[in-house]
Amino acid sequence: MKSNWTVYLSGEIHTDWREQIERGCEARGLPISFHAPVTDHGKSDDCGVEILGAEEKGFWKDQKGARMNAIRTQTLIEKSDIVVVRFGDKYRQWNAAFDAGFAAAKGKPVITLHDAELTHPLKEVDGAALAVAETPEQVVRILNYVIDGSL
Amino acid sequence: MKSNWTVYLSGEIHTDWREQIERGCEARGLPISFHAPVTDHGKSDDCGVEILGAEEKGFWKDQKGARMNAIRTQTLIEKSDIVVVRFGDKYRQWNAAFDAGFAAAKGKPVITLHDAELTHPLKEVDGAALAVAETPEQVVRILNYVIDGSL
Amino acid sequence: MKSNWTVYLSGEIHTDWREQIERGCEARGLPISFHAPVTDHGKSDDCGVEILGAEEKGFWKDQKGARMNAIRTQTLIEKSDIVVVRFGDKYRQWNAAFDAGFAAAKGKPVITLHDAELTHPLKEVDGAALAVAETPEQVVRILNYVIDGSL
Amino acid sequence: MKSNWTVYLSGEIHTDWREQIERGCEARGLPISFHAPVTDHGKSDDCGVEILGAEEKGFWKDQKGARMNAIRTQTLIEKSDIVVVRFGDKYRQWNAAFDAGFAAAKGKPVITLHDAELTHPLKEVDGAALAVAETPEQVVRILNYVIDGSL
Amino acid sequence: MKSNWTVYLSGEIHTDWREQIERGCEARGLPISFHAPVTDHGKSDDCGVEILGAEEKGFWKDQKGARMNAIRTQTLIEKSDIVVVRFGDKYRQWNAAFDAGFAAAKGKPVITLHDAELTHPLKEVDGAALAVAETPEQVVRILNYVIDGSL
Amino acid sequence: MKSNWTVYLSGEIHTDWREQIERGCEARGLPISFHAPVTDHGKSDDCGVEILGAEEKGFWKDQKGARMNAIRTQTLIEKSDIVVVRFGDKYRQWNAAFDAGFAAAKGKPVITLHDAELTHPLKEVDGAALAVAETPEQVVRILNYVIDGSL
Amino acid sequence: MKSNWTVYLSGEIHTDWREQIERGCEARGLPISFHAPVTDHGKSDDCGVEILGAEEKGFWKDQKGARMNAIRTQTLIEKSDIVVVRFGDKYRQWNAAFDAGFAAAKGKPVITLHDAELTHPLKEVDGAALAVAETPEQVVRILNYVIDGSL
Amino acid sequence: MKSNWTVYLSGEIHTDWREQIERGCEARGLPISFHAPVTDHGKSDDCGVEILGAEEKGFWKDQKGARMNAIRTQTLIEKSDIVVVRFGDKYRQWNAAFDAGFAAAKGKPVITLHDAELTHPLKEVDGAALAVAETPEQVVRILNYVIDGSL
Repeated sequence: MKSNWTVYLSGEIHTDWREQIERGCEARGLPISFHAPVTDHGKSDDCGVEILGAEEKGFWKDQKGARMNAIRTQTLIEKSDIVVVRFGDKYRQWNAAFDAGFAAAKGKPVITLHDAELTHPLKEVDGAALAVAETPEQVVRILNYVIDGSL
Repeated sequence: MKSNWTVYLSGEIHTDWREQIERGCEARGLPISFHAPVTDHGKSDDCGVEILGAEEKGFWKDQKGARMNAIRTQTLIEKSDIVVVRFGDKYRQWNAAFDAGFAAAKGKPVITLHDAELTHPLKEVDGAALAVAETPEQVVRILNYVIDGSL
Repeated sequence: MKSNWTVYLSGEIHTDWREQIERGCEARGLPISFHAPVTDHGKSDDCGVEILGAEEKGFWKDQKGARMNAIRTQTLIEKSDIVVVRFGDKYRQWNAAFDAGFAAAKGKPVITLHDAELTHPLKEVDGAALAVAETPEQVVRILNYVIDGSL
Repeated sequence: MKSNWTVYLSGEIHTDWREQIERGCEARGLPISFHAPVTDHGKSDDCGVEILGAEEKGFWKDQKGARMNAIRTQTLIEKSDIVVVRFGDKYRQWNAAFDAGFAAAKGKPVITLHDAELTHPLKEVDGAALAVAETPEQVVRILNYVIDGSL
Repeated sequence: MKSNWTVYLSGEIHTDWREQIERGCEARGLPISFHAPVTDHGKSDDCGVEILGAEEKGFWKDQKGARMNAIRTQTLIEKSDIVVVRFGDKYRQWNAAFDAGFAAAKGKPVITLHDAELTHPLKEVDGAALAVAETPEQVVRILNYVIDGSL
Repeated sequence: MKSNWTVYLSGEIHTDWREQIERGCEARGLPISFHAPVTDHGKSDDCGVEILGAEEKGFWKDQKGARMNAIRTQTLIEKSDIVVVRFGDKYRQWNAAFDAGFAAAKGKPVITLHDAELTHPLKEVDGAALAVAETPEQVVRILNYVIDGSL
Repeated sequence: MKSNWTVYLSGEIHTDWREQIERGCEARGLPISFHAPVTDHGKSDDCGVEILGAEEKGFWKDQKGARMNAIRTQTLIEKSDIVVVRFGDKYRQWNAAFDAGFAAAKGKPVITLHDAELTHPLKEVDGAALAVAETPEQVVRILNYVIDGSL
Repeated sequence: MKSNWTVYLSGEIHTDWREQIERGCEARGLPISFHAPVTDHGKSDDCGVEILGAEEKGFWKDQKGARMNAIRTQTLIEKSDIVVVRFGDKYRQWNAAFDAGFAAAKGKPVITLHDAELTHPLKEVDGAALAVAETPEQVVRILNYVIDGSL
């Protein structure tokens, strides 16, 4: 009998890679609960000042927001068995690399997902990963293999 | 009597920020041992293939190098009391953000160092830091205050 | 699908802030199990001597009671994903600050809840918190955002 | 041969209790390195804005200062064998209770030091302590006994 | 809503104290799962040689048995929220004191249960306990209070 | 009431020892969830290159495969209460010994299973085990005793 | 070059077994720092009330003393590489068994030292030990072998 | 200034690979303290029965010896920054793979050292290593690079 797995999907929020992985795993009947950060860019930026009050300085608006988001991300990474970290071609995505370092230090298996052209700048992150994928379909197949043993 | 402190200086390797911090702390007589990654870009890239044999694919050259560098970086971060992470204006520096996440998960106090214009993209990393500095001189003053209690 | 969260509500026991937060989260349909210390002041003070026998000295009565309460509080803080710590305007509430330090050292995200006028004396506790709220409604909104991603 | 011990002295900064303990231990020749927070009240409050720039809001001034002080306090508590926490008759001293909770969660033996009249409000903190002293001289004698075995 | 608790009952196996506690908690409707070592003295002594083959020397028979029992006891102590340790008036019960030390080092709240006349020889174990009871009924009342908040 | 147990079956993949243990435990009605590595030798060897792309060098094919398998094995060992490690008479089975070391360092009870003739070369692994069995039936009996207390 | 080792000698305080081990190791030139509890029975019993004030009830006198001694014992066990636990033929020595459980849970190698006639009642403690000695001379030889590799 | 490093050399005891590494590092002036198991095969096998008394069964002779050796090996692996694991062409060397698993679970960087022909059977161990070397000279160069940054 298959046991349940929990997978955290960290990183890029501007493409539908999470949906592709979730749909692919659902199609294969894999018993996975997926976690993710809040992926609505506006809400993620504004949550702090929206709930706790406006700030004049961008620095404090960002601190309020980032620390509020950390309540979610750190808790869900801790609860997850596997952390998938996606790097896209836009933005600097330092939060994705931060999550990868955080997960690695906690002993969580990390799978990275990015285009081949990012291989060199991401080498330290990939070096800490147990698998480096280029497509969401590959991640689905990895999860399928890891959980079900089938190729 | 002042006890000894160990500080890891992670991130950017193309400016002399490490030397500025080390000189500044030395001038103030602070009892700090500084650690850092290998900061020679060429050696850092080539160490793996240089020692363990050439690779045709860049991916494996990078894996060999990054994993060899990780022997140093993870060991020295573990040995350090404080981790300073510097983000410059060049390169993507995902390794710096990875180190910050790794250090935060290990419970190490993190100080970030970057220009104000990077505030928004670095908000998650800054949110996990106990201090966010813009100049090496500020880092020196923080270390001076933290260790010596003087402003 | 939303996963289940566990939230510990530490601190003040003389106002209905816990009920406000629980009702607010229930109204929003959030999947949260709430934990708390025993909030009946008299029982909390007397439990030790009531069950294990009377003491002449207040010191030992307090030791018996405090240590019996710690069986509950430390266990439930360990089991919780998030710890909310409320400071009211009465009493010294050192136990609330103790819980905050305990939770922080265990790597639990801490949310503090107190009036603005307590900002300065609580700065060390707030500095360790990921969010600082002034009203129970703000805590409800934070939990709503953290769990559901909606503002 | 006596091994070296490290003792952190947390809490009240407006009386000379630290000096009394340090002098008493020195007089007995105990091999102790003492650690403490920055005990200059003004510097402790101002360090953040002094080094990293002024803030209009007191809240952010306090965050900057408290988080900078945490670099010191958390590091030194981690390095210490024993944590002594002093509660005086002024101020709310929530930071002292926070330190006690932090130390307890890290498995550090805690000694509290306060007047008998604070027994009831401090019962949870005292309940987590391995010794509850009323005078600095008692703390000296405890350290003397613990390290040297002599009464 | 009450959450579920897990309580390990370590120590004496020749009286019915476990049944008294279990019945008392059941009568009060407390949501507790109880764990215990194998309490059949003969099986506990013989399990090793019975399953893995006879031994001529008592020492090895005991090693085989004790290490097999440790598979159960260490696993169940790790899974428990609270550890109750009972010392009776027969046998030396070093295993009970061993379990208490093991549980304390793992940060589990320990409740001891023994007659008043054992107070002095058990002082180190009692000193590490959060409650010291003399009767099973007191343990039931402690669990009732800790879980339900009622006296 | 019996609680649920999780048992990881590491090692040899060319005989039916896992099925024997699982059938034996099922016949006795033991509440155990069994975990195991992927036991299809071909898939286990090929998973990396099959999913992430072919490699010319056997070394990298093996790295890709072994690290992908580690996502499964390390996660499931962490989730298990007990780790059974089987050494057969073929192959070197260094992965089995690696798993035993990994499990021991994580504080998991280890049971080894191998013929008597392997006793000397396996002495370090057996020395870290809480039980050393020679047949799957013995492992079933151990699990039966550990979980149910019956011989 | 030999590195330095730290060995904690727990248990019986009424014979000179500690001196025998220390002299034996010194004679062999082993680089060991030895730690021990306070071995003066009277001081160990009285330290709490002597320093912190008299108690009418023996229970609280014992709590004060035992908890003060725990400051020393837990700190020194944590600092030690190896813990030797001696059981003599007098007293119940539950503190020795407690120390053994505490050390085992912390992952410290435990060596027990007792007469053969105590084998059966000590089987759980011996089962957790990496060596079971009957004489101080054997402990000296174990330490000599472990540190120096010589028999 | 270079800090001191500690390196554990695990595995094969029948060739002079340890001496080669130690001489090579000494020649380069690297500040390394090397640790190793007892490498005298006879003493390593006999230590248990030699010190603690003869055994008729090989199984118990091996248990006595292996567990005594574990006092040394586990302590020194814990104290080391880096663990090098050597697999030769003789014997099964399950202890070497066990050490690798133990070190990996403790978060220690692992370097493996073996001939290319062992690549496939060692793939899981190599997959957990941060560097895979074929010659002692390569290990020396890795340590030189990691510590000194020079190629």
